Amino acid sequence: MKFNISSNLEYNIQSPSTIILNIHALRTSSQQVLKENLAIEPHLESDELISITKENKFLRINISDPVTLKISYNAIVDSYYDLTDLESLEDVPLANLGFYELSFLNPSRYCQSDKLYRFANNKFGNIDNAFLKVIAITDWIHKNVEYLSGSTNSQTSAYDTVTELAGVCRDFAHLGIALCRALTIPARYYTGYSYKLYPPDFHACFEAYLGGKWIIFDATKLVPLNGLVKISTGRDATDAPVASIFGNVQSTVMKINCECLEESFIPYKYDQDNLKGLSW
Amino acid sequence: MKFNISSNLEYNIQSPSTIILNIHALRTSSQQVLKENLAIEPHLESDELISITKENKFLRINISDPVTLKISYNAIVDSYYDLTDLESLEDVPLANLGFYELSFLNPSRYCQSDKLYRFANNKFGNIDNAFLKVIAITDWIHKNVEYLSGSTNSQTSAYDTVTELAGVCRDFAHLGIALCRALTIPARYYTGYSYKLYPPDFHACFEAYLGGKWIIFDATKLVPLNGLVKISTGRDATDAPVASIFGNVQSTVMKINCECLEESFIPYKYDQDNLKGLSW
Amino acid sequence: MKFNISSNLEYNIQSPSTIILNIHALRTSSQQVLKENLAIEPHLESDELISITKENKFLRINISDPVTLKISYNAIVDSYYDLTDLESLEDVPLANLGFYELSFLNPSRYCQSDKLYRFANNKFGNIDNAFLKVIAITDWIHKNVEYLSGSTNSQTSAYDTVTELAGVCRDFAHLGIALCRALTIPARYYTGYSYKLYPPDFHACFEAYLGGKWIIFDATKLVPLNGLVKISTGRDATDAPVASIFGNVQSTVMKINCECLEESFIPYKYDQDNLKGLSW
Amino acid sequence: MKFNISSNLEYNIQSPSTIILNIHALRTSSQQVLKENLAIEPHLESDELISITKENKFLRINISDPVTLKISYNAIVDSYYDLTDLESLEDVPLANLGFYELSFLNPSRYCQSDKLYRFANNKFGNIDNAFLKVIAITDWIHKNVEYLSGSTNSQTSAYDTVTELAGVCRDFAHLGIALCRALTIPARYYTGYSYKLYPPDFHACFEAYLGGKWIIFDATKLVPLNGLVKISTGRDATDAPVASIFGNVQSTVMKINCECLEESFIPYKYDQDNLKGLSW
Repeated sequence: MKFNISSNLEYNIQSPSTIILNIHALRTSSQQVLKENLAIEPHLESDELISITKENKFLRINISDPVTLKISYNAIVDSYYDLTDLESLEDVPLANLGFYELSFLNPSRYCQSDKLYRFANNKFGNIDNAFLKVIAITDWIHKNVEYLSGSTNSQTSAYDTVTELAGVCRDFAHLGIALCRALTIPARYYTGYSYKLYPPDFHACFEAYLGGKWIIFDATKLVPLNGLVKISTGRDATDAPVASIFGNVQSTVMKINCECLEESFIPYKYDQDNLKGLSW
Repeated sequence: MKFNISSNLEYNIQSPSTIILNIHALRTSSQQVLKENLAIEPHLESDELISITKENKFLRINISDPVTLKISYNAIVDSYYDLTDLESLEDVPLANLGFYELSFLNPSRYCQSDKLYRFANNKFGNIDNAFLKVIAITDWIHKNVEYLSGSTNSQTSAYDTVTELAGVCRDFAHLGIALCRALTIPARYYTGYSYKLYPPDFHACFEAYLGGKWIIFDATKLVPLNGLVKISTGRDATDAPVASIFGNVQSTVMKINCECLEESFIPYKYDQDNLKGLSW
Repeated sequence: MKFNISSNLEYNIQSPSTIILNIHALRTSSQQVLKENLAIEPHLESDELISITKENKFLRINISDPVTLKISYNAIVDSYYDLTDLESLEDVPLANLGFYELSFLNPSRYCQSDKLYRFANNKFGNIDNAFLKVIAITDWIHKNVEYLSGSTNSQTSAYDTVTELAGVCRDFAHLGIALCRALTIPARYYTGYSYKLYPPDFHACFEAYLGGKWIIFDATKLVPLNGLVKISTGRDATDAPVASIFGNVQSTVMKINCECLEESFIPYKYDQDNLKGLSW
Repeated sequence: MKFNISSNLEYNIQSPSTIILNIHALRTSSQQVLKENLAIEPHLESDELISITKENKFLRINISDPVTLKISYNAIVDSYYDLTDLESLEDVPLANLGFYELSFLNPSRYCQSDKLYRFANNKFGNIDNAFLKVIAITDWIHKNVEYLSGSTNSQTSAYDTVTELAGVCRDFAHLGIALCRALTIPARYYTGYSYKLYPPDFHACFEAYLGGKWIIFDATKLVPLNGLVKISTGRDATDAPVASIFGNVQSTVMKINCECLEESFIPYKYDQDNLKGLSW
C-alpha cells in the first residue's frame, strides 16, 4: 500500500535551542521508504539518531540564534501488512517472551499498569483469547472515554483517563497499553501518519504482542488500521514525542498530510466480520 | 429499637498530647440515649465539644504526662427509623436545597466528586429515580470493589478506590459519597456502632439527601441498616474520625460492641423486596 | 475604611440552570454594608442563602429558559480592622480550641495537610512564634511559587502547587492553608474584593487562627491587607466559589471593581517594620 | 577491588508461576566476574535474558507445581573504578548526546521529571558545574528526606517523595533521577550489592551522565560508593527489580551479603575533600 505523507512545521525560536523531531517514516522490512525529502530552512546543523532497537529515528536540530525555523518533510512509503487469525493470537507464555517484549510489561510514566490490575482483571480477565481481550479493551475505551480535544495535557496519564473518561488519541493509547500490561500482555505506544484522519494530524495508537506478533489496535476507532504509516514505537509518549524541545521555542505551524496513492483502498477495522489481527 | 453499645480504648501516651474522640452515641430526636457511662482512667482533664450543626459530639482529653490511658464508654440507645417509598425519594431540586445540604455537594478531601462527573453520569446518569440511582451506586461499588483489610491507608480517597477497586468501609463510603455528589445528590459520611458487624468495630457508611430526608446507604452490605447507632456525620472521614491524635500516642486496645436489646430484630437491607429508604 | 465595590457578571444560559453566586460583601460586626444594590436582568426567581456560621451569603438564581443573564452588584462598605502585636499571636493550645476552629485543622479537597506534615515541620517547625511561622510560610510561597495566570485549573490542589511551584491567588491560598494545618494551626480560605489589585478581580487569600483571632495572610503579596472587603470564608475554594454553576452556562463578562473612598489610605503589608497581625 | 557477594532467596510457590530475578553481578569491562555459582533447588527450567544494551541480565524460572524454591547465588567479582575531576564533569551538550543517553532525560513511572522543572531549577538551576549540581541534589535529598523503612510502597514515586519526604533507598534514587532529568541531565537507576550496608540488602542508587561518563551518586549516603557491585541499570525500579513475580508466590527468605576481599578498603564518598566523580 503506497502513501504520500508530509509534515510542515514551523517554530519561532528565541534563544539557543535544540529540537528533536520524530517525524520520519520508519524504514522497516514491511515499510519501505521509496522517496524521502527533508528541508530545513534556514540551513542549520542537524543529525539523525537511531535507537539501538531501530524503533525510532530522530532528527536533532541545534539552533544558536533566534530564527523562524521551517521544516518540510515529505515521503512516499510502501507498506505491507499481514492479517492473522484470532486463534493464532494467543498470549505468549511468560516463559517464551524475550527481554525486549518483557520490558513492555513494565508500567511507564503514562501507563501505570501497576495500579490497574484489579480493574483490568475484573473487566477483561475472563475473556480467553488474548486478541479478543484487547478488542474488548479498545471497545470499552471507545465506549466510555469521550474524544475531546483540549481536555487533557502533557501530564495526563492512563490513571487519570480511566476515571476522568475524556482525552485524545494519546490518552486512548496510554489507557489501552496500561490495561494490556495489567493483564500481562506486552503493549507499546505507536505513532504514525494516518490516512483518513480528520482533521489531519499525527496519530497515536498502540500495539499488543500476541502470538509472537505486534498487533495494532486503536481505541479511538477514528481511522482504518491499514492506513497507518509508522513513525516510531516506545513505552509511551515519552519515547515517541513528535517534538522534544529544549529552549525558548514556540510552535507556530503544524500541517500534516497523508494520502493513499492506490486507487482501491479498502479500509480495515476490527469488527464482527474482521477479527484478524493486523501487523506489519 | 434498643441497643447496648460500648467501646473500650487504650492508648499508650509518651508525651504531652491531646486526643479527640468521636465515640458517643449522638442524641437526636430519633435516637435517645437512655443511659450512658464514660470512664477515663486515670482521671484526666477532658471536655465535650458539640458542633454548631449538632452532628458531632467530641470528647477532648488533654494529657500532660506519660500514661496508659483507658477509656470505657457504654450506652443504651433507643432509635426510631422511618421507611419511605422510593417514589417520594426524588432529587430535591437545587432551587430548594438549603445551605446545609448544598454544602454536601462540594468535593472534599476524600471525595473528589469534581473528578468523577463523567464516570458517574455515564454509569448512573440515566436512572430516573434518585433513590434507585444511589442503590445502583452501592450495587456497583459492592460488585466491583473488594473489601480487603489493610489494602488502604489514611490517605486513600475515592479517586483511588474507583480505580484500584479495593478498600474497607471508609473507602466504600467515600466512593459512594463522591459518586452521589457528582450526580448533584448531597451526600454525607456517617459513622456509628453497628449490630451484626463481624469482627465488631466502628462502621462507616453514608447518607444521601433524597426527598428532603437523609437516607442511609451502605455499599459494603455487611450489616442491617436498622442496626446502626449514629455517632456522627460530616463531609467525609476528616469530620468524623474515631480519634484525632496530637502527640506521641500509640493505640493499643480497641474493643467495640453493639448488641440489640430487643427479642425480635428484623434486619433491613435494600433489595428487590425492600425498596423503601431508611432514615432516622 | 470605606470602599465602593462592584461586580458585573454576564452569563449566556442555554438550558434550565441554577447559578449560586458568592459576591455579596458580608455583613459582620467589623464590616458594615452602608449601601447595597443588586440588579438581575431579566428579572428571575432568586433567593439568598446564609450559612449557619454566618460566614457565607449566597445568591441563588434559577433560570428556566435560555437567556443572557446580567448581574450587577454594587455596595459601599465600611470596615474596621485591628492590629495585634506578634507576642499575642501565639498558637491557641489544642485544649482551648472550639469545635469551629478545630474543624479548620482538617485536610480538605484542595488543602491536603495530611500529606505535608514533614515538609511543614522541616521548613517551619522550629520557628517559635506562631505568627512568625505563618509569615515564614507566606514568604516561602511568595519566593518559591510563580504567579502565573493559566498555569492551574479547578482541580489543582496544594499538593500539586508545593511541587509544581506555579499558580494563581487561589493556589497560593490553598498552599498556605495546608501548611498551617500541617503545623496544627487552624486556617481558612478567604475571598473578597481587593483594593489595588491589578487587573481587578476577586481575590483569594487565607486566615490563620492565632491568639484567638483570625489573622489575614496573603502569600501573593499583591495587595494591601487593609484593602480587602470580605465576601466569605470556608475550608477552601469549594466553600467559597465566586459562582457555582449547574447547567449549560457560559460566563461571558466578569468585571470587578474596588475603590477606596477615603483620601488617605495607608497600605498595610507585613514586613520587618509591620509585624502586627491584621484581623477584622 | 575484589568482592564476594551472595544472595539466598526462598519462595513459597502455590500455583504455576514465573519468577524473573535480577541478582547476577553484571559482566562489564570494568567489572569482571571471577567465579560465579547459582543453585536452584529443586532443579527447575530456567533461562537467562540479557538486554540488548547489556545493562541487565535476568534469570527466569518457570514453576509448574507448588514448591518451596531456594535460589543461592554466589560470585567473586573484581571491579575497577575511575575518579574524574569535577572540572571534566560538565553537562554534555544536548547536541552531543547519543540516543541511549537522551532516553534517560525522559520521565518514567517513578521519576516524573516533567512535574519537577520549576522545583529543580529553583533549587539547583544556578549551580554552574553539573557534577556539583548533582552533589547538591543528593545533599538536599539526604538532608530533607527521612530514611524510614516501611514508609513507602511499590507505587511510591519521586513526585510523592519530594513532598512527603520519607522513603527508602529506592525512593531516594528515584527522586535524585527525577531532579537530574528535570535539569536536562541524563540519569539512570542503579541496583547492586553493597559493601558495608547495614542491615545487608540489595541497594539502589543512581548514575548521572556527566562529561561523557555515568557517574555514581547515592543520596542515602549509607555506603561507600566504591563498595558497590553492579547488578543492573535502567530507567527506574521498573527496569531493575530484584524479582518480578507472576503467580501466587510468597517471598520467605532474602539474605544478601557483600564482603570485600582486599585488606585495605578505603571507603570513597563525596565530600569537600573528595570531589572527583566515581565511575566504572
